[in-house]
Amino acid sequence: MERIPLSMGSLRTLPWYVGASQVLGVACVVITGVWMGHYHGGYAWDGSAQEFNVHPLCMVLGLVFLYGDAVLVYRVFRNESKRSVKILHALLHMMALIISIVGLVAVFDFHATAKISNMYSLHSWCGMLTFVLFILQWLLGLGLFLFPWASAQLRGWYLPLHVFFGLLLLAMSIGTCLLGITEKLLFNIMSTYSEFAAEGVLANTLGLLLVCFGVVVGYVATREDFRRPPNPEEEALSVHFKTLSEGEIPSSP
Amino acid sequence: MERIPLSMGSLRTLPWYVGASQVLGVACVVITGVWMGHYHGGYAWDGSAQEFNVHPLCMVLGLVFLYGDAVLVYRVFRNESKRSVKILHALLHMMALIISIVGLVAVFDFHATAKISNMYSLHSWCGMLTFVLFILQWLLGLGLFLFPWASAQLRGWYLPLHVFFGLLLLAMSIGTCLLGITEKLLFNIMSTYSEFAAEGVLANTLGLLLVCFGVVVGYVATREDFRRPPNPEEEALSVHFKTLSEGEIPSSP
Repeated sequence: MERIPLSMGSLRTLPWYVGASQVLGVACVVITGVWMGHYHGGYAWDGSAQEFNVHPLCMVLGLVFLYGDAVLVYRVFRNESKRSVKILHALLHMMALIISIVGLVAVFDFHATAKISNMYSLHSWCGMLTFVLFILQWLLGLGLFLFPWASAQLRGWYLPLHVFFGLLLLAMSIGTCLLGITEKLLFNIMSTYSEFAAEGVLANTLGLLLVCFGVVVGYVATREDFRRPPNPEEEALSVHFKTLSEGEIPSSP
Repeated sequence: MERIPLSMGSLRTLPWYVGASQVLGVACVVITGVWMGHYHGGYAWDGSAQEFNVHPLCMVLGLVFLYGDAVLVYRVFRNESKRSVKILHALLHMMALIISIVGLVAVFDFHATAKISNMYSLHSWCGMLTFVLFILQWLLGLGLFLFPWASAQLRGWYLPLHVFFGLLLLAMSIGTCLLGITEKLLFNIMSTYSEFAAEGVLANTLGLLLVCFGVVVGYVATREDFRRPPNPEEEALSVHFKTLSEGEIPSSP
């Protein structure tokens, strides 16, 4: 009876999960684009409602799809050098950051032209909190992991926090999108939403697909046997929190 | 220079995190109660808008606070027998389930009396999905972990899925609450919400506190050095997925 290690066997399913995440992510971006394009008159950059439409598209593309893909690179590029993968991770997050800044400028610009208050809704509170934490997380990640000045102990302390807050921010991004979808529907089609208007069903479906994208990315990122195999050559340069946390540190300097 | 193991040192912070989670959880339940009591006329069970008010209170109490506490018992009762903690975990989830059923009956009953459509909003879609998955998760957990008939291999396969979906469902519960808060505010105070009406600020604050509760519970549950220490006496009865996944399984029966 032939035996194979379970971790090798389960790795065969990784491409299917990654493929599913990409189908879901692209579907979310396309549906957001179609929703704003077909039901709300397309896109512009003139302070009009069409400039607002840039906002959901940029946030779903930047803070959900690209953000999720930046998380996945550590699982997809398992055998590339850790440094290359780190740079790709940082670059994807930088693209996510730039696109989400465009999305934020679009909504503030639209509000300014239409004389609508800013930052009063739960959507805006959650969104701004997510955005500020995302910038902090990106700067800390860049400073501590990509540049060489941080000590192994500092990196070891920060790594699990970076991973935890990374997935938390993806969840908060998706939650904020769902709040935005609900706001947009209640502002625009409150009277027909309860009659299952096509726009409402489309936007609800977008909400569920966003949740599914987050679930697949979160599952791939946290599944124990999808982790990168430790590379002895990189051990000296990198750091593994588990080793540190099971070791000893001085109780006083 | 005295040295202490890092994992022992970090365990000292566990009570603070657990304390913070309880303060946040109680604050969420109280603020929900005050919001519905003070701004929406209190509680009743007669199909009126006051019966609707039972819905948010029960969902926050059941599917957020009690659910979160059920997750935490594995970290809080680190030195009790695993079987006792499992029973407490299942009982807290059963209370969460019963209270959330009362909350669901309240909103369907109110809708029936007021002739309002059911299940058209993203809030209702996410909420129903969360509730159905919660029942499935509870039944599978009960059947596989509490009763003795499941094989160690089956338990080992299901444990990481149970943990992943457990935290996912907490995130989905909290996300659904945030959608409910946004719906309630836009249905009731749309014109004054953008002028920072007190009710809007209170409900937004509730939303952020719900997120904070979820963050603290998620952090305590996933932090490596807060895990239960393995108990050799229980090893024979229980199962650790890591051991299994690093071992071998037959590739064919």
